[in-house]
Amino acid sequence: MRSHERDVSEGMLFTDQYQLTMAQLYYRMGLHERRAQFDYFFRSYPDYGAHQAGYCINAGMEWLLDWMEHARFGERDIEHLRGQTGRTRERVFADDFLDWLSRHGTFDGISMRAIPEGRVVHPNVPLTVVQGPLPMAQILETSLLNHLNFQTLIATKAARIRESGRGRLLLEFGLRRAQDRAASAGARAALIGGADFSSYVGISHVLGYPPKGTHAHSMVQVFMALGEGELGAFRADADVYPDDCLLLVDTIDTLKSGVPNAIRVFEKLRRRGHEPVGIRLDSGDLAYLSVRAARMLDDAGFPDTAIVLSNQLDELVIMQILAQIEDEAPRYGVDADHLIGRLAYGVGTRLIPSHGDSALDGVYKLVAVEDSGEWVPAIKLSETPAKTLNPGDKHVWRVYDARGRATADLMSRRDEDPRTMDSILLRHPLEQATYRRLSHADISEIESMLVDMLVDGELRYALPSIEEMRELRQADLDRLDAGVRRIVNPHIYHVSLTEGLWDLKQELIAAARG
Amino acid sequence: MRSHERDVSEGMLFTDQYQLTMAQLYYRMGLHERRAQFDYFFRSYPDYGAHQAGYCINAGMEWLLDWMEHARFGERDIEHLRGQTGRTRERVFADDFLDWLSRHGTFDGISMRAIPEGRVVHPNVPLTVVQGPLPMAQILETSLLNHLNFQTLIATKAARIRESGRGRLLLEFGLRRAQDRAASAGARAALIGGADFSSYVGISHVLGYPPKGTHAHSMVQVFMALGEGELGAFRADADVYPDDCLLLVDTIDTLKSGVPNAIRVFEKLRRRGHEPVGIRLDSGDLAYLSVRAARMLDDAGFPDTAIVLSNQLDELVIMQILAQIEDEAPRYGVDADHLIGRLAYGVGTRLIPSHGDSALDGVYKLVAVEDSGEWVPAIKLSETPAKTLNPGDKHVWRVYDARGRATADLMSRRDEDPRTMDSILLRHPLEQATYRRLSHADISEIESMLVDMLVDGELRYALPSIEEMRELRQADLDRLDAGVRRIVNPHIYHVSLTEGLWDLKQELIAAARG
Repeated sequence: MRSHERDVSEGMLFTDQYQLTMAQLYYRMGLHERRAQFDYFFRSYPDYGAHQAGYCINAGMEWLLDWMEHARFGERDIEHLRGQTGRTRERVFADDFLDWLSRHGTFDGISMRAIPEGRVVHPNVPLTVVQGPLPMAQILETSLLNHLNFQTLIATKAARIRESGRGRLLLEFGLRRAQDRAASAGARAALIGGADFSSYVGISHVLGYPPKGTHAHSMVQVFMALGEGELGAFRADADVYPDDCLLLVDTIDTLKSGVPNAIRVFEKLRRRGHEPVGIRLDSGDLAYLSVRAARMLDDAGFPDTAIVLSNQLDELVIMQILAQIEDEAPRYGVDADHLIGRLAYGVGTRLIPSHGDSALDGVYKLVAVEDSGEWVPAIKLSETPAKTLNPGDKHVWRVYDARGRATADLMSRRDEDPRTMDSILLRHPLEQATYRRLSHADISEIESMLVDMLVDGELRYALPSIEEMRELRQADLDRLDAGVRRIVNPHIYHVSLTEGLWDLKQELIAAARG
Repeated sequence: MRSHERDVSEGMLFTDQYQLTMAQLYYRMGLHERRAQFDYFFRSYPDYGAHQAGYCINAGMEWLLDWMEHARFGERDIEHLRGQTGRTRERVFADDFLDWLSRHGTFDGISMRAIPEGRVVHPNVPLTVVQGPLPMAQILETSLLNHLNFQTLIATKAARIRESGRGRLLLEFGLRRAQDRAASAGARAALIGGADFSSYVGISHVLGYPPKGTHAHSMVQVFMALGEGELGAFRADADVYPDDCLLLVDTIDTLKSGVPNAIRVFEKLRRRGHEPVGIRLDSGDLAYLSVRAARMLDDAGFPDTAIVLSNQLDELVIMQILAQIEDEAPRYGVDADHLIGRLAYGVGTRLIPSHGDSALDGVYKLVAVEDSGEWVPAIKLSETPAKTLNPGDKHVWRVYDARGRATADLMSRRDEDPRTMDSILLRHPLEQATYRRLSHADISEIESMLVDMLVDGELRYALPSIEEMRELRQADLDRLDAGVRRIVNPHIYHVSLTEGLWDLKQELIAAARG
């Protein structure tokens, strides 16, 4: 795609056709200045099949805000819309509406409260709340969902992979398998969620992280084809990068050729006053090979060089590798904890493509419409009961138990404050008979989660650095129960309604059913 | 991301760090003018878990060629690289190499043969063959894989969904769940693979297809909150879009409210001289509801209005819906074939995110290095035998049986031509004892599959339109066995080596093993 085409496809027209036809309908019905409120939330955690998320890491807001700041209906966009025709060759968009769009089609009237990037988040809780004129709040939907769904999905995956690797160095290697230029947003989300660095040069530069890498099999193959063999390739690498020498050892035979050749080169490097970085294993039984390679490196006097693992890794594979190492290492005279401490992970195919679940089911739902200065709550029923909305303008609270652990996320009506209630009834969003009551003795803190970001289109929020987001993430993870953090079959975190919100929801359902 | 940041991250630095460090190594070792050949191929079809692909649809080349044409090492890129430091704070890239990059770091020396976009393709077959100077052919790897892997993955998914929907109208609705701006490449690939239209306005304009859509629940909710109900919303839609009226009927209750209200509006539309387009079902039991809705529409005199289905559709879900309709329709006095003929599919979450398998495992492997004007074939063994390469400069042939059906893809040495052989031995790429012999009586055609696209950086190929790619796709699908086209557990298509290539591979393996 040419760059002028990109300006068209990824500017204001980075939206669905029905947003524009609905906007025109609102304009035609005189509803275009009426304000509406939409909630962004996801309905369920990613489910990867054999394993499932018990939390998500919120991400994507900064790039959404950036898109909103720059998106507008330029002349080219309006011309494109003017050219659209419907089934009977009539124009889809009339001139008066297009004039209105070119004058008022910005996000200047939008206000937005949201949970900051990096924080742990849960289903059905509004992560972003949008208020603004109906047509532009509607047009925003698609791009908002696109930005927030994807980065939250990837930050979550990265957090899980980091957890399964017990916090050891995690390198994002996925550009080649990533989804076109989503690699950029994906790498950013991975850095927020748990990756230390990325191999992707361009985005690393933009985000201020040094890009990382080793070398490919092809480099060894070139030297083999020219008669200098694997050892020749390793020597060349050590000559050119004496202080950053990390050798890929599986091009021919890991234990018979790769590791012995690496050790010869490492010994020579050390004699010349340099310390090798390590080796990379990219095929075969990574647990077994890392134990055997660790033993060979230990015996050769390199007990602390890194062993980087790659090849279709994800949180489940890493968990299994570490379990096998703990089982197998002692049989080869290798200390399992020491070996695990020297491992690093290069994760490509299964991180940014979010192997097992490739889309977060985040939605953007109308929850209120302004009428005569009042917010009228809006409801939607559904053939699928779990899709029934939690209506109206709301607060989001996180309730911490006496140990300081997060015990529930709580939605209340906007005019309620659970901090001033004598005790709090936490109601299941759907099941009438499922609730629990907490007294203040059970609670160490009730935290308000939504932060003002935009007020009438103006940024009122100091955007945190990725480093700060990582700190938020780690602090939130540390306050989760171990059961919720589990990689497989996690414990279900509670998301609840106050009694007041529950009652409002039931009233609206009854009224809609008529 | 700001647009100047995008220029940095998605230009020439849209690559992995190790490509650049290897390029510098080649430069340092005097290998930077040596030519190398790399094959792009994927190792296995997408496996979605409960169902599996038996073919892929090749896609992505045009956008790769476009990227190659515009990517270069500009001043900003070089400055970024100059600023990189390694573990000991020494600079990673030396000035002489950076000077060489800024002068010679283009794809002008690259030649490329490839299978055209839209064609059916199979594992282990080179889909793109790259020849060029080692450093730039190496740097190209990441972007090439990124472009071709993703679009091939999505075109394949779209083809499967179209097949399962028996060729009925397929609308791509995925921008909101897509992976950031990969939505653009994804929508393009979906259009190549099987989608008729997309809801994504921007990319539809760029590619010359009208964007399509209906309306959202929120539109009905607005009218409900303002006291005008679902019927008020439907009337507004019919007033504004009398010739394009397609109503979403599940906001309250599909059969008790949505469909009856839609019919009232449709009747009024018809009295005013307009034909309604149809209804959309987005929740609940889509098979049952479509049968019941069809009956209601039939009885009201609208037997041909469309019924658009959406909500987590994919090829398996559609297959199941159609099976249920065939079973259930007669019980409600509905003709199943007629109903299936009026269905259309809006597929979002599970198309561009490629639900079930979110990355194609395409790789880019060195298969030959030029030495004294000769191509020396290169091999790579592996701890995983299936990863052992098919070496050297090769032809790719498609062999059609006497019925005109594709029976095998065949790789040969470049100096072989199976069209001139008396009979052809087709060898399994790995298993010595698995082969078959075809005589010319068994064969109706042997087609050479690779087309010259770039010769020394110059485009020598008339890029086909998406419409032409769709024709290639359909023609190829029509020449596949029904078993290979199956959605679940497809028959395995044969990919083979000639005897000559098999022998070369065995020689090289033996030599590498020493």
